[in-house]
Amino acid sequence: MKNDNDLPAAAGSSFIEQTKYHNLLISDQLRGYPAPPLQPAYDPALVRYHLPDPLTLAAGYKADVHQVITERSSIRSYRDKPVTREMLSLMLWETQGVKKNVRNIHTLRTVPSAGARHALETWLLINRVEGITPGLYRYLPLIHSLLQVSVADDIAGKFTKACLDQQMVKKSAVTFFWTAEIYRMKWRYSERAYRYIFLDAGHVCQNLYLSAHSMGCGVCAIAAFDDDLLNAALGIDGISQFAIYAASCGLRV
Amino acid sequence: MKNDNDLPAAAGSSFIEQTKYHNLLISDQLRGYPAPPLQPAYDPALVRYHLPDPLTLAAGYKADVHQVITERSSIRSYRDKPVTREMLSLMLWETQGVKKNVRNIHTLRTVPSAGARHALETWLLINRVEGITPGLYRYLPLIHSLLQVSVADDIAGKFTKACLDQQMVKKSAVTFFWTAEIYRMKWRYSERAYRYIFLDAGHVCQNLYLSAHSMGCGVCAIAAFDDDLLNAALGIDGISQFAIYAASCGLRV
Repeated sequence: MKNDNDLPAAAGSSFIEQTKYHNLLISDQLRGYPAPPLQPAYDPALVRYHLPDPLTLAAGYKADVHQVITERSSIRSYRDKPVTREMLSLMLWETQGVKKNVRNIHTLRTVPSAGARHALETWLLINRVEGITPGLYRYLPLIHSLLQVSVADDIAGKFTKACLDQQMVKKSAVTFFWTAEIYRMKWRYSERAYRYIFLDAGHVCQNLYLSAHSMGCGVCAIAAFDDDLLNAALGIDGISQFAIYAASCGLRV
Repeated sequence: MKNDNDLPAAAGSSFIEQTKYHNLLISDQLRGYPAPPLQPAYDPALVRYHLPDPLTLAAGYKADVHQVITERSSIRSYRDKPVTREMLSLMLWETQGVKKNVRNIHTLRTVPSAGARHALETWLLINRVEGITPGLYRYLPLIHSLLQVSVADDIAGKFTKACLDQQMVKKSAVTFFWTAEIYRMKWRYSERAYRYIFLDAGHVCQNLYLSAHSMGCGVCAIAAFDDDLLNAALGIDGISQFAIYAASCGLRV
């Protein structure tokens, strides 16, 4: 290794060291603190779109799992044709859909999560989805609905810039942004939560690739972004909630 | 938030801060250093098992991707019956299989990876796989083969202990361990590599869940382990290569 980053105090290796079990503080769960809410509060006055039933939709897009896994690749160019609300509904279900709410303490979803904490939030930059005004939306998994956060002008430009000018954000039909509501995971796992939230985001993004591919869409994962710009564009503080992963999506050419 | 961990110097939040682009050092790739090898060297004298062709096998286990995603759950109990070598071959292909080796600089695989760096290594604790002596193996993705690392007595006990006595490791037909060969990712991404390697491990584990489910197997992801014990059991230094994720697997009851 030849990198200055390999100093003993390097961010990565010291993070790995400090998140080993013998270096963790006792978690809030063990201290008896109550579990945090399953999703952040939202203004009920905002526009919401209820999404169509994903289980019925899935029957229309049957595809062999092995073929989908083998064929999948990262796709950065998309058709001009919009993605349908039905497709988006199924992609949201297969990435973060709630199969069961267990006493409002944890949820079982279509992806695994450490201790079923599911501490991710999904945000969408919608450019071309049939029947939905372009803008920034939040997915509300407990009611399988979208919450309209902003329909400001050139919102796509702002997110593209935050993603270091990667043009597939602007050109996508929809770009997914996943943020960590980190206390939901830290409550149980203390600092090790920061490892788990990245693992969880990986589960989610992989399912998006497969779900999208089965419907004739393509996806490109995005982990290179300006954290501060992206957190600001989403309106989150970057500490208690912060961006960790994203993926552009649209119909394949 | 109520946790002592929320001090400004907390491991997680300072890792997030230090791996923002404006805090990264220039990468070795940009400095003109050569790309590291695609997989670590191995002793050619060790026993190797070539695995059956996964693409032919896949045809025998067709399953609808949406049904598999929706049905998947974490499974901790398994049948006594062994997993076949064919099933294992397909699971390895669908988690880390190499679709293309591009000039020995990067690979395209059945999962996405930041910059196609694919800096994970797969190790298997084999307890009950037809035709394979129980022991510790390394997957060699470039030749889709297994390398026998150790067939020492009570190797399952050692790995179970390293996984904080989670009994599904001992009871599994096979447990997957994924380690980061971090320089393969750092060469291109500097310290931010430590974020990406966890995302990548999430992609891989999700595909294992789906692949296994389609063949009547069940999986339980394991991120809670004693890092030092697990690295020692694998015979890796815990710095240049370290354990980041694991998953037990066996036939569903």
